[in-house]
Amino acid sequence: MINAVGRDIPEEILKATGKEVFQGVHHFDGHVYKKHGPEVECVINSNGSKMVDSIHDVLIKCGIKDGMTVSFHHHFREGDYVVNMVMKEIHDMGIKDITICASSLGKAHDPLVEYIEDGTITNIQSSGVRGKIGEAISNGKLKGLAIMRSHGGRVRALVTGETQIDIAFIGTPTCDEYGNCRGIGGKSDCGVLSYAMSDAFHANKVVAITDCMVPFPNFPAHISMTKVDYVVEVDQIGDPKKIATGAAKPTTDMRKLMMADYCTQFVVNTPYFKDGFSYQTGVGGASIASTISLAKVMKERNIRMRFGVGGLTKPMCDLLINGQVDALLDTQDFDLAAVESVKDLHHFRISAGEYANPFNKGAVVNKLDFVILAALEVDVHFNCNVVVDSNGMITGAQGGHPDTAAGAKCAIVIAPLLQGRTPAICTDVTTVTTPGESVDVVITDYGIAINPKRQDLIEAMKDVDLPFKTIEELRDIAYSIAGEPQKVQFGDRVVGVIESRDGTIMDVVRQIKPFEFDD
Amino acid sequence: MINAVGRDIPEEILKATGKEVFQGVHHFDGHVYKKHGPEVECVINSNGSKMVDSIHDVLIKCGIKDGMTVSFHHHFREGDYVVNMVMKEIHDMGIKDITICASSLGKAHDPLVEYIEDGTITNIQSSGVRGKIGEAISNGKLKGLAIMRSHGGRVRALVTGETQIDIAFIGTPTCDEYGNCRGIGGKSDCGVLSYAMSDAFHANKVVAITDCMVPFPNFPAHISMTKVDYVVEVDQIGDPKKIATGAAKPTTDMRKLMMADYCTQFVVNTPYFKDGFSYQTGVGGASIASTISLAKVMKERNIRMRFGVGGLTKPMCDLLINGQVDALLDTQDFDLAAVESVKDLHHFRISAGEYANPFNKGAVVNKLDFVILAALEVDVHFNCNVVVDSNGMITGAQGGHPDTAAGAKCAIVIAPLLQGRTPAICTDVTTVTTPGESVDVVITDYGIAINPKRQDLIEAMKDVDLPFKTIEELRDIAYSIAGEPQKVQFGDRVVGVIESRDGTIMDVVRQIKPFEFDD
Repeated sequence: MINAVGRDIPEEILKATGKEVFQGVHHFDGHVYKKHGPEVECVINSNGSKMVDSIHDVLIKCGIKDGMTVSFHHHFREGDYVVNMVMKEIHDMGIKDITICASSLGKAHDPLVEYIEDGTITNIQSSGVRGKIGEAISNGKLKGLAIMRSHGGRVRALVTGETQIDIAFIGTPTCDEYGNCRGIGGKSDCGVLSYAMSDAFHANKVVAITDCMVPFPNFPAHISMTKVDYVVEVDQIGDPKKIATGAAKPTTDMRKLMMADYCTQFVVNTPYFKDGFSYQTGVGGASIASTISLAKVMKERNIRMRFGVGGLTKPMCDLLINGQVDALLDTQDFDLAAVESVKDLHHFRISAGEYANPFNKGAVVNKLDFVILAALEVDVHFNCNVVVDSNGMITGAQGGHPDTAAGAKCAIVIAPLLQGRTPAICTDVTTVTTPGESVDVVITDYGIAINPKRQDLIEAMKDVDLPFKTIEELRDIAYSIAGEPQKVQFGDRVVGVIESRDGTIMDVVRQIKPFEFDD
Repeated sequence: MINAVGRDIPEEILKATGKEVFQGVHHFDGHVYKKHGPEVECVINSNGSKMVDSIHDVLIKCGIKDGMTVSFHHHFREGDYVVNMVMKEIHDMGIKDITICASSLGKAHDPLVEYIEDGTITNIQSSGVRGKIGEAISNGKLKGLAIMRSHGGRVRALVTGETQIDIAFIGTPTCDEYGNCRGIGGKSDCGVLSYAMSDAFHANKVVAITDCMVPFPNFPAHISMTKVDYVVEVDQIGDPKKIATGAAKPTTDMRKLMMADYCTQFVVNTPYFKDGFSYQTGVGGASIASTISLAKVMKERNIRMRFGVGGLTKPMCDLLINGQVDALLDTQDFDLAAVESVKDLHHFRISAGEYANPFNKGAVVNKLDFVILAALEVDVHFNCNVVVDSNGMITGAQGGHPDTAAGAKCAIVIAPLLQGRTPAICTDVTTVTTPGESVDVVITDYGIAINPKRQDLIEAMKDVDLPFKTIEELRDIAYSIAGEPQKVQFGDRVVGVIESRDGTIMDVVRQIKPFEFDD
């Protein structure tokens, strides 16, 4: 069945997943559903401790068995030890057919490929799968399906009960023996536990894993003891050097600086750029550079930001230090400056649900004026692809891309016209991850295209001195330089589903096959 | 059927409520249930505002109709305007058969009696019902039943879905137009919104009512926009003078001071009184005096409290100011000192669920060393009554009494031997609200009785110079002074149920009838 972005979703996938095809970003606005409640085991005694000696023992206590769904968060990013530690134990116990529901998986989790190959893991739900897991999935090694969800979409899957987590594993920088978790204070600080908060609310069993025990009560708890069944102390939950990187050096890439400058000029000429505006940006070089240049204009014009959202890095935290923003709303800390900044009284932790869940009564993304995003590909319908590379390999993650694009009044995607030798602006993206309906502006190093549905923005820019072009013109320039790329050739088997934030199917990803040249 | 405290619960009440009889405090420890999820209406748009013009309009939007359950919190205490404001509108719209699920109801809500009499309100669920509502219920004016729950028991009823709230009304001192609520910052500060947090999680529709609008985002939100459907601004949500009283003057009543001194001497001679102990006390004169005298001993012996819990008043907050406690965990602020103290970084807001819900994975009460409580009556089985006076009239509230008594390692009840001319220590309490199983020590002005099941405490006190007696001896002294009271004579009709915190029936309350003297 053809969906609202023109993708043909195979009937067998609709049948296998019980899902509908994507019907537009606001299709479920006002939809009423009954929230899923997990199973809870009551603790009505004063014995106090929830400590369990080992991952092995806690798996036994949680009744681990074939076919279960286990969940993880990715706040430790490339420094994470928890996923591998738990999955090794599950593997060594001979358990099969596990579904992993992770907020994201990266290169740190390459060892999981072995467990995919031997049937320990047969389904994966994640924002994305970088590294060797992505390759394994694209090569058809996962017996079941990979479902790629946005951060908000993942919470939606949990609150609706579409995904029911049997055991959630929460790596936590500090914990007390009754399960109060905090993202800060230990030797493996990650600042916030936003993605894991939803797991704690919706999993049947919740296990906190820490390498830093602290006295009760570990308050203010980011995840409450009232949600945690067991606590396991281990030597090390992560590699601090890879959890939070030092502050990224500002880019010196002239192309990125030019796009950042275009972006700032665009932003400041919209009607939304006024005292009290709100703003989110990603962690790409151009995005970070645009925050830095925007801060200068804000200072010159005496315009103050009401709140900034992220996925935070130093330039956003500098706005707080410099008194240019009232509040930061934080779901993830990318560098040490952000981990440090979260101690500021105006830097607030929010859960992934508060951030982006389309199925609550209003998430933070709905209140964004601007979001600055990146993309691997953008097509002439303004559809974006942030998950599958131009060779068809799963290599990225949805993250908050579709959530923020849907919510923000002005969603700006920055992409160089060419990614290496491949056009990033194209006729049809390899895989649709964010629908063009949500994307207002595309900024490239060769010009800026405004989505024709945003006539208001086109009108606002009519006297602005920026290199505006149509999206087709940008595509044509890209093709004139690099040639029109051949379509990626996929096999028949669907290995992954790109889920829309509302749970419908945006696109599917098929198994890759060696490229066959035309005769 | 006879329950674990010897009360005969009528079959028709078990049938009507679908409940079991009370079978002991730990009967449900380890019980597994599926948590109830409310209906949620998704907001997937960026229109932003949830403002509605009036209580009338918001009732229409929420689909108010006969037979619905509406909920309220009691953080504004005797200064609350919200309950009457909403119920007047519901009454004026001609709606009938409403169940009120309030965290508590007091004298501020006397006007509701009219709505009880005319059938607008036919069922009441509350911690207790002071004032004219209590009289109306005891006089049989409520068509249905009054269910009296502890603070923890109320949350249990919500999380299990036993009580399903159609519309929760949350009076909030400050709110933004997207529904982020804070207990502080406006003209009607109440400090915390702990009881309302459970309603926000479990009601189908949630309405924030405020008299102080602030810019988005009103962070850190005590109740999140993700839970709030509508926001209504009104002139005044409460009378600040009655919300938080000025600091209570320390009692000068010699009898209370003596009991406070006994209490402190008892506490400091238990094995739990050591560095890092935890403590909760009520707001009675003797309880407050015992906190003050305990603070002196702590200072002398250089013993520090790890955390204090409450229902907080100035003497508890003074411990924080004086560096004698690491953390305060707060569900309610009784005076201005507590409202002010909640701004301290070591004074933490907790929800009623975190505080006391027996059906989560471990509440704060489970970690209490000491709780100091009061009671209207205590019997020789150590059962306490805090709801029904010795004339059989509903006049009090369970509050956190059964929750903290169940959780604390040492639950101490302070009661003068005589309440006026009526023995407070008696053979059988009029109504059981807290089971004797949970009560370790009773302190009166005539002596101290330790529950025989606590041989460890009896042993610890064997060389302590305090007037220890058996509970029967205390009862006998009381009866020797005031005479053995005649049993209250009730009618047949059951008007109220005293629910145990686990949802079973502890006792019933019958309609009062004029006292008939024996021939």
